[in-house]
Amino acid sequence: MNVLIIYTHPNPKSLNAAILDNVVNGCKENSIVSEVRVLDLYKENFDPVLVFNEHKKRRDMQYNPDFEKHRNLLTWASKIVFIYPIWWGRPPAMLLGFFDQVLSLGFAYKHTKGLLSEGLLKNKSVICISTMQGPTIYSDIWLKNSHKVMMKRAVLNFVGINKVKFFQLANMEKKDGNQVKHLTALNAYFKVMKT
Amino acid sequence: MNVLIIYTHPNPKSLNAAILDNVVNGCKENSIVSEVRVLDLYKENFDPVLVFNEHKKRRDMQYNPDFEKHRNLLTWASKIVFIYPIWWGRPPAMLLGFFDQVLSLGFAYKHTKGLLSEGLLKNKSVICISTMQGPTIYSDIWLKNSHKVMMKRAVLNFVGINKVKFFQLANMEKKDGNQVKHLTALNAYFKVMKT
Repeated sequence: MNVLIIYTHPNPKSLNAAILDNVVNGCKENSIVSEVRVLDLYKENFDPVLVFNEHKKRRDMQYNPDFEKHRNLLTWASKIVFIYPIWWGRPPAMLLGFFDQVLSLGFAYKHTKGLLSEGLLKNKSVICISTMQGPTIYSDIWLKNSHKVMMKRAVLNFVGINKVKFFQLANMEKKDGNQVKHLTALNAYFKVMKT
Repeated sequence: MNVLIIYTHPNPKSLNAAILDNVVNGCKENSIVSEVRVLDLYKENFDPVLVFNEHKKRRDMQYNPDFEKHRNLLTWASKIVFIYPIWWGRPPAMLLGFFDQVLSLGFAYKHTKGLLSEGLLKNKSVICISTMQGPTIYSDIWLKNSHKVMMKRAVLNFVGINKVKFFQLANMEKKDGNQVKHLTALNAYFKVMKT
């Protein structure tokens, strides 16, 4: 299994950074994982601003050489792990701009004769690990699960990825938010992850 | 009434650009509108990537001189109009990054002794005008209204703006999507808009 971790946090001393370490180390001890690669969007200074206009056509996005590397990584991976904080009820603009730029027509999905598009990133599964302030009830009830809907239905299902698992770590602003317990649990999960 | 239009589209020949024209012109003919200002995020090359770390503290965001102009515009406006396309079920990363960068603690909201924060952008109202491909049912049912939830509950309500109106223009990929009718209706709405 090829594992791609797409990591989106600006602060190398953050809880997200500790999660990244634990996930990478867990994967390295998992015998079914052939290789782990990390795409650190902040570190590589990824440009999240999609531009198209009269001269730069939207239909040519799939050939944009700036994102060939990213397309190849997505194709290579059979498991994709996203690690990110929740800001304003959803992932940082940086990660959403990654979707805007890289998940192009012709690469990630294609039009069909029917009503629905066809996702082209098949036979992959995704794990989303997010950290947030406040309780789960705020996100799941007041925000009507919009974070999960947006990631799973609006993006991943659309490009053909139906197997999506969430670890939504809540109350992370609290000192007694069980941060160490969560890190240990994530590490253990990736050590024995099967599919 | 001071009207601020926050416009987010890369293509000056787009339907969104035509919407901007019609909204601006409608406002100019509205006698209760004192002044209209347009913030064109693509044109001004706005940086949507929020960075904080050990040296650049998150708590200092409210004083970041790069966004003083944007904070002043939000303070100045009593009506804020957002014009944007829907990509992947939500506004472009550019607009979401505007929220990440500008809606800082101390400027847009503050902590309280209770469970909830207090929004600081009071006595303002918002209109969101969005264009999307596909039918309304996709967004409202399959995506569980997550676009509206994210804009209204996760962002605007949080900063103290409770009056939010949506114009969600669907099926805009179709040539017979009533584009001209929508533009005329928007223009007429802003001509007579009262509060």
